Amino acid sequence: MTASYKDAPTITVDVNGVPFAYRQVGTGGGVPVVFLHHLTAVLDDWDPAVIDGVASERHVIAFDNRGVGRSGGATPDNVEAMAEDAVAFLEALGLRTVDLVGFSLGGMVAQVVAQKRPDLVRRLVLAGTAPAGGTGGANAGPLLQSAVQQAAEQGKHPKHILFFSPTPTSQAAADAFLARLDERILQDRDTPATNESIGAQVTALAKWEQGTSPAGLATVAQPVLVVNGDEDIMLPTINSFELAQLLPDAQLSIYPDSGHGGIFQHHALFVQQTLEFLRH
Amino acid sequence: MTASYKDAPTITVDVNGVPFAYRQVGTGGGVPVVFLHHLTAVLDDWDPAVIDGVASERHVIAFDNRGVGRSGGATPDNVEAMAEDAVAFLEALGLRTVDLVGFSLGGMVAQVVAQKRPDLVRRLVLAGTAPAGGTGGANAGPLLQSAVQQAAEQGKHPKHILFFSPTPTSQAAADAFLARLDERILQDRDTPATNESIGAQVTALAKWEQGTSPAGLATVAQPVLVVNGDEDIMLPTINSFELAQLLPDAQLSIYPDSGHGGIFQHHALFVQQTLEFLRH
Repeated sequence: MTASYKDAPTITVDVNGVPFAYRQVGTGGGVPVVFLHHLTAVLDDWDPAVIDGVASERHVIAFDNRGVGRSGGATPDNVEAMAEDAVAFLEALGLRTVDLVGFSLGGMVAQVVAQKRPDLVRRLVLAGTAPAGGTGGANAGPLLQSAVQQAAEQGKHPKHILFFSPTPTSQAAADAFLARLDERILQDRDTPATNESIGAQVTALAKWEQGTSPAGLATVAQPVLVVNGDEDIMLPTINSFELAQLLPDAQLSIYPDSGHGGIFQHHALFVQQTLEFLRH
Repeated sequence: MTASYKDAPTITVDVNGVPFAYRQVGTGGGVPVVFLHHLTAVLDDWDPAVIDGVASERHVIAFDNRGVGRSGGATPDNVEAMAEDAVAFLEALGLRTVDLVGFSLGGMVAQVVAQKRPDLVRRLVLAGTAPAGGTGGANAGPLLQSAVQQAAEQGKHPKHILFFSPTPTSQAAADAFLARLDERILQDRDTPATNESIGAQVTALAKWEQGTSPAGLATVAQPVLVVNGDEDIMLPTINSFELAQLLPDAQLSIYPDSGHGGIFQHHALFVQQTLEFLRH
């Protein structure tokens, strides 16, 4: 397997007639760790520092869910269907037990996978995410549009605004994060998410946020590590606290001076805490 | 220096005419780490697993504040005066820079020391504690009395009820914690806290909880690690979240299935996170 995520080829697996794109890196030992992506993301949006860090001890797999990047099909407009697709992908790879790392929308998908298929999931890392019916939701559509406009005015990337704090430290961390994303060779980049796929994901997020009681979380017996930056403006940080409180066996880590993308800003600490958590 | 806290002799230093009792353990290298004790505690109440764990890399000092255990004088009835006494103790030892680990009431004292004497404090670990004017305060007097009564009825130690969750895992962790406290040789135990001292500490805690805006926390420039169990009934866990939010540079860790004494239940994780945090 390749040594670094930036060099990992994009491959596909047939999932009930639809090709799903994925990349893998790291040692083959132990339970594989599968990464579930955020709204608007494709395979190129994963921080190589995070993926390679976890892959220093584990076999890591990242994939584009249905209708995203180079994966075929149409992106569903609800988290439950996304979770079904994720399960189908895991089964297509022949995986019987995995650890899941879900970031943002991917963290919601991971929550549902853990509830629906407890047999498949050993441990969960939920980063920058929220329980269904959480507090002070993102209102993702307008937030994305406003960030794109603000970023254009300031000569920045929307992720400077959406994923990081306005402090100089956090903005410098955003620069470093975006530079890491650019390390990947140009000729094997993923296909950007389409407006159609993003629209479906925004709808899925909105439904999740309007969702009623997240009572199902009480049935998640797996150990969970919940992580976020302390000033998340997309899914306000209090959601991570509440998510940890709702889960029977959750450890919570909140990082200083950082936003929704706190795990990218504090990638060394996140990798260290994740590896320690997954070692058990 | 002795290898383990359970064997560390109790010594005293003259603090402006008053003897303050303390114990020390660990290597002499680097900035010393000073532990600030909880309400009702004396030197014998520190978990040797925590002290020895931190002492594996650092010089650790634990002390009885004024009027507590074998320290002379009368315990003051407010956190500000306790902080002045803590500073006087540090100065009596000739310490110019320390890291502070404050647990519960000791975490409140540490917050004030950091505000009043930023020159003395390099980094802070605040465990099982709350900002002034926090949420859903302990009402410590009645809570202590009720726990003592409940414990007697159930043949348990009050700490089973106050420091741990009612779950079997957490109650077993309480047994293990109490057994570790008993490792210390009987002939060199500290003097238990007097009712007079406990009364003053309860008053100090009540004043802290009724305290108004904790605006001073915004001036704490030091990096802080805030830690608690996820079901603290003495200083409800949301206080730890709020404390981290109020501090400019705070990392938060909440541990699963544990209460006020989460750092004792999860001592290995707490030691690892504290050492990692203090290494920087």
